[in-house]
Amino acid sequence: MLVPLFFVVPMSESAFPTRLAVLGPGLLGGSIALAVRERYPDSRLALWGRRAEAVESIRQRDVAATVSTDLGSVVEGAELVVLCVPIGAMADLAKQIAPMLSPTALVTDVGSVKGPVVRELTAILGDRFVGSHPMAGSERDGFDAARANLFEGAVCVVTTGVGSDSTTALGRIEAFWAALGCSVRRTDADRHDEVVAAISHLPHVLAAALVDLVGGSDPQALEFCGPGFRDTTRVAGGPAAMWTEILRTNREPVRKSIEAMVEKLREVVILLDDSDGVAMNRFLNEAKMRRDSLRAEK
Amino acid sequence: MLVPLFFVVPMSESAFPTRLAVLGPGLLGGSIALAVRERYPDSRLALWGRRAEAVESIRQRDVAATVSTDLGSVVEGAELVVLCVPIGAMADLAKQIAPMLSPTALVTDVGSVKGPVVRELTAILGDRFVGSHPMAGSERDGFDAARANLFEGAVCVVTTGVGSDSTTALGRIEAFWAALGCSVRRTDADRHDEVVAAISHLPHVLAAALVDLVGGSDPQALEFCGPGFRDTTRVAGGPAAMWTEILRTNREPVRKSIEAMVEKLREVVILLDDSDGVAMNRFLNEAKMRRDSLRAEK
Repeated sequence: MLVPLFFVVPMSESAFPTRLAVLGPGLLGGSIALAVRERYPDSRLALWGRRAEAVESIRQRDVAATVSTDLGSVVEGAELVVLCVPIGAMADLAKQIAPMLSPTALVTDVGSVKGPVVRELTAILGDRFVGSHPMAGSERDGFDAARANLFEGAVCVVTTGVGSDSTTALGRIEAFWAALGCSVRRTDADRHDEVVAAISHLPHVLAAALVDLVGGSDPQALEFCGPGFRDTTRVAGGPAAMWTEILRTNREPVRKSIEAMVEKLREVVILLDDSDGVAMNRFLNEAKMRRDSLRAEK
Repeated sequence: MLVPLFFVVPMSESAFPTRLAVLGPGLLGGSIALAVRERYPDSRLALWGRRAEAVESIRQRDVAATVSTDLGSVVEGAELVVLCVPIGAMADLAKQIAPMLSPTALVTDVGSVKGPVVRELTAILGDRFVGSHPMAGSERDGFDAARANLFEGAVCVVTTGVGSDSTTALGRIEAFWAALGCSVRRTDADRHDEVVAAISHLPHVLAAALVDLVGGSDPQALEFCGPGFRDTTRVAGGPAAMWTEILRTNREPVRKSIEAMVEKLREVVILLDDSDGVAMNRFLNEAKMRRDSLRAEK
């Protein structure tokens, strides 16, 4: 089903942006700010937030040269603008910043869905936009959960296929993520969406469905839960509004993944009746070997 | 679907067994041995293992007064015998020890499935047998993964409904697990099996199916996996032979749980088409609240 084109991109020497704007001070935007302060203290960083209260609280932490609710003062003169707002808020924000950008400025984003987002933002921003998806995060949200090492060792997908074909722009965005510690992969945007439907969006659906099934049938059963149940359902603690947007934006690949899982579960039910358990053991053993082969956890 | 009868049992003062036999030196048997050595160093502990090599290796660690492949010398004089072997090996072992037990000796087990196991072992051992399921463990297996604090704060189910109705025997077994740090719940054996099908066996099936689905379609997709996928699939790293036995022994409750999950996933697919996302958001938000309400992780 999924045959993405993956290229590990060799990084050329590339100067880190001397002026960088991050729009949206949540977990990802905040972690970019903290990583830049630690790794590139000479880069001039400007951080935009929508809510005055949140901006004021972050300003006191001294993480960026500028922290403001005023888009113009944050975006002005930036070589790179990183959109770190929810997927549904990106197009409006892109329209607002489009007339403020300097001619050579590049824009990227951190959205978990790429095909629809890249199409929409390229229509607004043109070839200066390149889609990104740093695959880092946690079920915690907001600036308070941000940390400077969030991206270390994380895979970051930079997309092709729709939107910009400028290899210069792609190379600069890839160098940016690599500079924050990411392992960068250049991938077709629509194929990215199929892969994340399977490895990220489907696991979220399964975790939420499992909690719903157990808690909805008998809330007391949750008192019996051990570490296995907690691990399996941890991602269900993520922000509901954000995940609603992700699942709906990536609707068709998510639907295909859920339907593939339903088919797989039907196969497992049949294995329960297998007379000697050999087929079930083979299924579980192959899954164990695949799980054991995942690269070590950070 | 699941309406188990749960009673939190108040613990009476009860002397810890002065002679204890643990049969099977894996993760659970080994952890019992380590916990007893730490908490009740005056209790005389005997440990049985099937393989001479493993027994020799454990003997050198000085965790028990007796470590042996000879059942007779391990079981002789024990007030309590704890069966820590795989479910499929319990009946044979019970038949072997039955003639060796002292008249007042109690026997319990650590099997993850209770109805069928308790019925089988009660037929062999009579009222001296009480079923237990300490809900502790990890995807790691064997004595090397054992630790003295494995049971601290873990729920341990002690079963009623089938097998022994001796409240004295139940109370002694409950006191034993409480003494190792468990939070003990007295529960009907068949209802236990329905609860663990939902909170433990179904999560294992989902994790294995997810790894199988992603890795089977495109092994390279696994390279993209972040911490969410790793958490959701961690339990799939558990021993395949053990899990094959568990799933097949608890076949009917597992089948019902998988079928309930298939139904739930069909509902989620419909939510994808919801025009405004309100229903999806409600579903994810309820799951998040339920997940957030789980007692803190150890």
